[in-house]
Amino acid sequence: MGEIMIKMNPVEKGPLKYQRLFERFVAGSEGNVIIQMQRLGIQTTFITAVGSDPFGEVIISTLNSEGVDTKFVKIDSKHPTGLYFVQRGYPVQDKTKVFYYRKGSAASFISESDIDEKLFDSIDMFFLSGITPALSKQCRNAALKVIELCNKKNVDFVFDTNIRINLLKTRKTAMNILKPFIENSKILFTGVGDLKFLFGRELETNIKELRKIAKNAELIIVKKGGEGSTCFDINQNTIVEHKAFKVEVEDEIGAGDSFDGTFLAAKLKGYSLEECLKYANAAGAITVSLKGDIEPLPNWNDLKLFIEMYEKDKEKLTR
Amino acid sequence: MGEIMIKMNPVEKGPLKYQRLFERFVAGSEGNVIIQMQRLGIQTTFITAVGSDPFGEVIISTLNSEGVDTKFVKIDSKHPTGLYFVQRGYPVQDKTKVFYYRKGSAASFISESDIDEKLFDSIDMFFLSGITPALSKQCRNAALKVIELCNKKNVDFVFDTNIRINLLKTRKTAMNILKPFIENSKILFTGVGDLKFLFGRELETNIKELRKIAKNAELIIVKKGGEGSTCFDINQNTIVEHKAFKVEVEDEIGAGDSFDGTFLAAKLKGYSLEECLKYANAAGAITVSLKGDIEPLPNWNDLKLFIEMYEKDKEKLTR
Amino acid sequence: MGEIMIKMNPVEKGPLKYQRLFERFVAGSEGNVIIQMQRLGIQTTFITAVGSDPFGEVIISTLNSEGVDTKFVKIDSKHPTGLYFVQRGYPVQDKTKVFYYRKGSAASFISESDIDEKLFDSIDMFFLSGITPALSKQCRNAALKVIELCNKKNVDFVFDTNIRINLLKTRKTAMNILKPFIENSKILFTGVGDLKFLFGRELETNIKELRKIAKNAELIIVKKGGEGSTCFDINQNTIVEHKAFKVEVEDEIGAGDSFDGTFLAAKLKGYSLEECLKYANAAGAITVSLKGDIEPLPNWNDLKLFIEMYEKDKEKLTR
Amino acid sequence: MGEIMIKMNPVEKGPLKYQRLFERFVAGSEGNVIIQMQRLGIQTTFITAVGSDPFGEVIISTLNSEGVDTKFVKIDSKHPTGLYFVQRGYPVQDKTKVFYYRKGSAASFISESDIDEKLFDSIDMFFLSGITPALSKQCRNAALKVIELCNKKNVDFVFDTNIRINLLKTRKTAMNILKPFIENSKILFTGVGDLKFLFGRELETNIKELRKIAKNAELIIVKKGGEGSTCFDINQNTIVEHKAFKVEVEDEIGAGDSFDGTFLAAKLKGYSLEECLKYANAAGAITVSLKGDIEPLPNWNDLKLFIEMYEKDKEKLTR
Amino acid sequence: MGEIMIKMNPVEKGPLKYQRLFERFVAGSEGNVIIQMQRLGIQTTFITAVGSDPFGEVIISTLNSEGVDTKFVKIDSKHPTGLYFVQRGYPVQDKTKVFYYRKGSAASFISESDIDEKLFDSIDMFFLSGITPALSKQCRNAALKVIELCNKKNVDFVFDTNIRINLLKTRKTAMNILKPFIENSKILFTGVGDLKFLFGRELETNIKELRKIAKNAELIIVKKGGEGSTCFDINQNTIVEHKAFKVEVEDEIGAGDSFDGTFLAAKLKGYSLEECLKYANAAGAITVSLKGDIEPLPNWNDLKLFIEMYEKDKEKLTR
Amino acid sequence: MGEIMIKMNPVEKGPLKYQRLFERFVAGSEGNVIIQMQRLGIQTTFITAVGSDPFGEVIISTLNSEGVDTKFVKIDSKHPTGLYFVQRGYPVQDKTKVFYYRKGSAASFISESDIDEKLFDSIDMFFLSGITPALSKQCRNAALKVIELCNKKNVDFVFDTNIRINLLKTRKTAMNILKPFIENSKILFTGVGDLKFLFGRELETNIKELRKIAKNAELIIVKKGGEGSTCFDINQNTIVEHKAFKVEVEDEIGAGDSFDGTFLAAKLKGYSLEECLKYANAAGAITVSLKGDIEPLPNWNDLKLFIEMYEKDKEKLTR
Repeated sequence: MGEIMIKMNPVEKGPLKYQRLFERFVAGSEGNVIIQMQRLGIQTTFITAVGSDPFGEVIISTLNSEGVDTKFVKIDSKHPTGLYFVQRGYPVQDKTKVFYYRKGSAASFISESDIDEKLFDSIDMFFLSGITPALSKQCRNAALKVIELCNKKNVDFVFDTNIRINLLKTRKTAMNILKPFIENSKILFTGVGDLKFLFGRELETNIKELRKIAKNAELIIVKKGGEGSTCFDINQNTIVEHKAFKVEVEDEIGAGDSFDGTFLAAKLKGYSLEECLKYANAAGAITVSLKGDIEPLPNWNDLKLFIEMYEKDKEKLTR
Repeated sequence: MGEIMIKMNPVEKGPLKYQRLFERFVAGSEGNVIIQMQRLGIQTTFITAVGSDPFGEVIISTLNSEGVDTKFVKIDSKHPTGLYFVQRGYPVQDKTKVFYYRKGSAASFISESDIDEKLFDSIDMFFLSGITPALSKQCRNAALKVIELCNKKNVDFVFDTNIRINLLKTRKTAMNILKPFIENSKILFTGVGDLKFLFGRELETNIKELRKIAKNAELIIVKKGGEGSTCFDINQNTIVEHKAFKVEVEDEIGAGDSFDGTFLAAKLKGYSLEECLKYANAAGAITVSLKGDIEPLPNWNDLKLFIEMYEKDKEKLTR
Repeated sequence: MGEIMIKMNPVEKGPLKYQRLFERFVAGSEGNVIIQMQRLGIQTTFITAVGSDPFGEVIISTLNSEGVDTKFVKIDSKHPTGLYFVQRGYPVQDKTKVFYYRKGSAASFISESDIDEKLFDSIDMFFLSGITPALSKQCRNAALKVIELCNKKNVDFVFDTNIRINLLKTRKTAMNILKPFIENSKILFTGVGDLKFLFGRELETNIKELRKIAKNAELIIVKKGGEGSTCFDINQNTIVEHKAFKVEVEDEIGAGDSFDGTFLAAKLKGYSLEECLKYANAAGAITVSLKGDIEPLPNWNDLKLFIEMYEKDKEKLTR
Repeated sequence: MGEIMIKMNPVEKGPLKYQRLFERFVAGSEGNVIIQMQRLGIQTTFITAVGSDPFGEVIISTLNSEGVDTKFVKIDSKHPTGLYFVQRGYPVQDKTKVFYYRKGSAASFISESDIDEKLFDSIDMFFLSGITPALSKQCRNAALKVIELCNKKNVDFVFDTNIRINLLKTRKTAMNILKPFIENSKILFTGVGDLKFLFGRELETNIKELRKIAKNAELIIVKKGGEGSTCFDINQNTIVEHKAFKVEVEDEIGAGDSFDGTFLAAKLKGYSLEECLKYANAAGAITVSLKGDIEPLPNWNDLKLFIEMYEKDKEKLTR
Repeated sequence: MGEIMIKMNPVEKGPLKYQRLFERFVAGSEGNVIIQMQRLGIQTTFITAVGSDPFGEVIISTLNSEGVDTKFVKIDSKHPTGLYFVQRGYPVQDKTKVFYYRKGSAASFISESDIDEKLFDSIDMFFLSGITPALSKQCRNAALKVIELCNKKNVDFVFDTNIRINLLKTRKTAMNILKPFIENSKILFTGVGDLKFLFGRELETNIKELRKIAKNAELIIVKKGGEGSTCFDINQNTIVEHKAFKVEVEDEIGAGDSFDGTFLAAKLKGYSLEECLKYANAAGAITVSLKGDIEPLPNWNDLKLFIEMYEKDKEKLTR
Repeated sequence: MGEIMIKMNPVEKGPLKYQRLFERFVAGSEGNVIIQMQRLGIQTTFITAVGSDPFGEVIISTLNSEGVDTKFVKIDSKHPTGLYFVQRGYPVQDKTKVFYYRKGSAASFISESDIDEKLFDSIDMFFLSGITPALSKQCRNAALKVIELCNKKNVDFVFDTNIRINLLKTRKTAMNILKPFIENSKILFTGVGDLKFLFGRELETNIKELRKIAKNAELIIVKKGGEGSTCFDINQNTIVEHKAFKVEVEDEIGAGDSFDGTFLAAKLKGYSLEECLKYANAAGAITVSLKGDIEPLPNWNDLKLFIEMYEKDKEKLTR
């Protein structure tokens, strides 16, 4: 569940003020995760809301084209589809700034009544990110109902803190809003920036603090960008790590989502945690090496080819 | 006074759903009128509000680049710059459909306090369209204050009905909101579509109804698209008409604004009503023959060259 | 059933030799018909074959995005997805020339074994065009099996002659290949160019010749481009006609498909023959007024808006 | 002989001031004529000069790619290749305005010494337009030497008045400069705009005046744009006319050149004057229907297909 | 004071010969400096000349849009606006080659009479680069008059050697022309390439030679590209240095101008020399990280954000 | 001799599935080699075949524009011009995947009868790559005839192994097909990837194996990508090496061809082996630093400027 939006991406890098040509993409953190899972062979269903406008149609047909089940996508005739503009590579190279038109969007009006209890009988896992409860009061209540139903129906609740400073503003608000989701998650994703924002200390200490809150977590995965990633296996009390694959960053957005989706799909397919991290790191590396959100999400063949060429043989003939 | 927005124009014609590449323009009915006047040598000042975001900067620097005085452009840090998307040529060729993200925009929060009484001491004319009072309660009050100050300071109040069905919804609402502006205008612009929406009868009858309401009007100008335009000179009790210049329609948007701005500038420069209509028609024709809002607005040289080549000599050597 | 291909469309008009920039589209006569029907609310299934290459993926995800059932799309690892290049507007304005890379394509290897008899238990109608039996011997046999199964399972067999001179070469070959399909069709579409190629006389005579062959037809619809269309209701022994809506031709390709799909959908929705022709003509007109094959295919709302604005009120306010 | 330049063509129509994206073309009246002839199977040689800069390389490789002999193209290391910018469709739709950077260009320094007498032993025809003698004193002298050598070596001297107001300024200058070329031409092309500029009367009278000056002409061809063309066969004392083929004008530039080249090639191939005019009109029509100068120049196959479809059968199947 | 030109930038990198698509920019060293200062809150006035052509209009409206006072921009109806083409990334990656059409441009006809003495009563600082005196004899005289008036009116004369080999050809000419400007500058900017060209020795020695000539200088700033920059404070007899911020070079042009403008603005705002260098280095780094001249020039907010993220916290959340 | 094809290059990097805009290029290994030689002043003739379609015309006019003699380019009316699509930068950054439509192409029908014995009387060198014999049985026979004629007429036979895994599939097939060409070559080019595929051991051993087979070779050149290149001078029994010039890889395709062409041209111009390798490495580096195949091929001036700036003076002023 989450908001999928229309992303207007300037064709050129630089200050948004001077951009004149924009490409329209479909984007949104949870949507990326779900499409990555679907692409890796996991059947998914997405709960969201779009406006009854052409951008809403774009989102639904994009999900359909990827094979995601769209029967829980609500078409809201009163509120428009969420939208944002991106400023790429300015003032800091490789970094992106975002300007939202998401206030009052259709997805911010998702409410408890949009969560169909029956759905929880047929699923193994429910993915949510820290964005959804931060969108609006109603979205938060809907998200809390998700926890309740996961617990009731024995569905694995997966959470990524995925902090949007623009929505959560302060550490205190962030902690208040995210706490119940961190507490209830079985698999918990987070990143070094999020941890710093939430706890404000050194990485080691931040992780300790998080583990105290995440009482139900069986796996906690910390994404560290160019430093790779670490997975804490709480039950086994072990730590698994994997270095990042070195690529040149073209567009950092979407890498974390690609990571999450790949990790979860690999997990569901029965791979070891080491392999899950390796595939997730590879997916993240491929995603940052290219523009776009959904477009660079790799399938199994491409993930494997990527790892093979990186680990073994860069001179492999491919033509 | 009015709202200037960012217009996202798909590069290709067709259903918005399939458009992927958009060009960013600056657009807005009153802004077009004012820039057309400035381009024709009339010094103008614009009252509006933009967000404190890159799109707001774009609007201010565009007005500056045209020489319009921007000291009354408010930068509103709480509300974003208005935005809209355009669907061109579908389903009806040459027609445009608009999808707005203007609800809650900076300009919709323009209020009485943004109207500086002193400004009215130094101007000859104040232009307003039917869009502004339809934006919000506050905008309406600001617009009513404009009428009051025009009357008090003896400034010519110019009004264009310019109905946006999207904002005014029904005939009754439209009439309620527009009536005081029609009543108080000294120069009144309208179009056949607007008249039909307001009065619902034959053009002749519609005009009669309008004249009843427009008690203070000295000039009433009816724009009739491909049929040209008619000007009722109330004081002289005469009617002046001018045929449209035949061009192929590329983009109908902005033609009416170009017409208004040219008519007013020609009037202020002392041209006869016949000449005012001719120049205004020429400006409208040039504007519909090209894409864009501000871009095709002609200067005096180009207006004169256009009329000369249309009226006299299509074989004129120009290289 | 039919071939869907990748269409490489030069961004500019003119001789293909000088074109450098191409847009990739998904196109194919039967695919257009089926997507038009799906867009108008008819559930459809498509039988085709694509290569196991990125272009094959594009075709499947396009069909999915439109809601067409793709379970009968075969992925052929030995033959590539069909492809063609288009030359637009040269040497004759508004006309298109086509350069194919479809020989040996995956779809040309569709054979009888790809026709699943069970499918025929659950469908009302089967659409085929003259292209499919002309692709290859195997395709022809598959198409003949379709007739047999339609007859056996009491499914309406719908056929469009849709002659490709490039594939059928001579009148004699064309007649030999198309005859069984014309004979067995219950609803038969054709066009004035096709009739001229098949029978080589005046339109009236050509139609008479066709009617002699089409022994089982209940409806014969003749598409006449800018002249509109005529439907012969054989059972009622009546003729229904509808004029074309006048639009400027941007790209003639796909208009006939859009016509067929709309006529069939309207028929299945229970509209009268007059209405079916009107909607089909409107769909054709919208399609020729824009570039692209699938993109301009209209839904019911847009069809109705188009007809309303054309028939009643061109000045309707739409903003 | 003549100047070939780099033409910077804005991608969009409208005031040059707002254009940001330009396409680079190779253009120039005499170059178009020569390439059209080469494309129609006549072996040609071109005398010109370019700068020793990348744009000079572009021009040479373009001539080479078309098969034109470039051994008389001088590379001038002191002066740059000529250049111009185009404003399309503003203020008058379908009309083009030109902004030159050709002053001091390499071609304006072509002089008598660049005219190799031996060349005249191996050619049948020499083509020159009114642009070349107007470029500079040196160019005029070079052009006068061409006349002298044509007379001496019995080569047909062909001239097109092709007036550039920008270079010739007044009627008097134009007449002074062009007179010797008109007097000496064996085949003379002109247009209604040129005639009006030179003689300033009605078309009939203008033509009479021209015929008085063109003492050596055997053929005088008057191009009348949308009205077609007329050929005066002086020796036979007959007049041949041909209507224009009606197409929508996309870009008028180059149509006259395409006309000249086609007429001359058809003449050299032995066609009758009627056929020469028909092919020349067809070539002109195809050229105005598309953007670009060299690109739309048709070959024999396309010319014949165009005429067949226009004269006989618009419904011809072409796929 | 200086020349602002139209820059035609190929969309793709590589040999100019193969480039077909160009973007139009406004560029020119002194213009960049002045716009950078204006963007950082310093009110500026620009002395230049443009042609009375659309490119001249572009330059004036660009300066207006940035808030630069344009009352001293002369519109010259006899000479065109200067123009140049750029070859990017070939043959040396990251390097740019320039092809000028600036000979005989409007700006090269700036003369003493264009320097208005009264202007010097109201300004604190006058900026000039080594390009202006190299443009033409007249420009040199105008530039010499600037020195004279600066001295007379006690205005700080700021000079950047900014050598254009294309204009100055040899070391001797360069020295002759630049000497009076170096001698009279109060603040003097130069770069390692310029120093090498002028003195031809090791950097240390070159700087010593320069200091001998720059008798009136209070500050000498040496820009060292990727090595950062050094400022010699002559009065204090101290040396301040600052390392470059490491970014990937996208387009080196304009970096020096951005550096100068930022240094001067920071100085006028009262920052310490250390801070001036830091901001100037940051501005240079941002500028080289993006294409374009004016577009990437940063404002204070973006400069500070850049430095903060580089110096402290690359993981700062920005969404 | 070899196949030149049309290459469709997506404008953006990423999975081919999501690419919508493609640029058309002319490409083909042997064509690149020949054009590089021609650009460096060696007169060349090319034997190939193209379809009688617009893409065939493109290839011929491209060769003409570069000055390559095209009299041995066969136009085959039965088979189309070869074509391929490229996927750039996915899944591995900087790597390219290729999707061919070359099966049954005109060039694959080149046969012995297309090899004109007389040609061999007038040439010094014949270049062939491992692609040609792998295209088809006929091509192999034609290639074998080339060896025979080279031997008979004392023409230097030059061969590049240039393995296409797509065509040769297994090591065994590759060895069978390539052996006679390796055996007969006087100058032999190969690369580390090719050697690994052929012999499957360490580089040193692979080279030894190759030398055993290449019994007639006088020079064997091993291209090692970012590691530079090595030339074995068999007669002198010496080894010459040259490091690669470090550039950022934009598009690896074509680098080897540019290397070969430059090495051969330098050799024919009489440069030492050291210089041949240096120029060849420089050409390879320039080629990988830019997109395109033919476009980045450098001429002598640019090669020398590149080497000068890399080896001596990166701060050289170039404006």
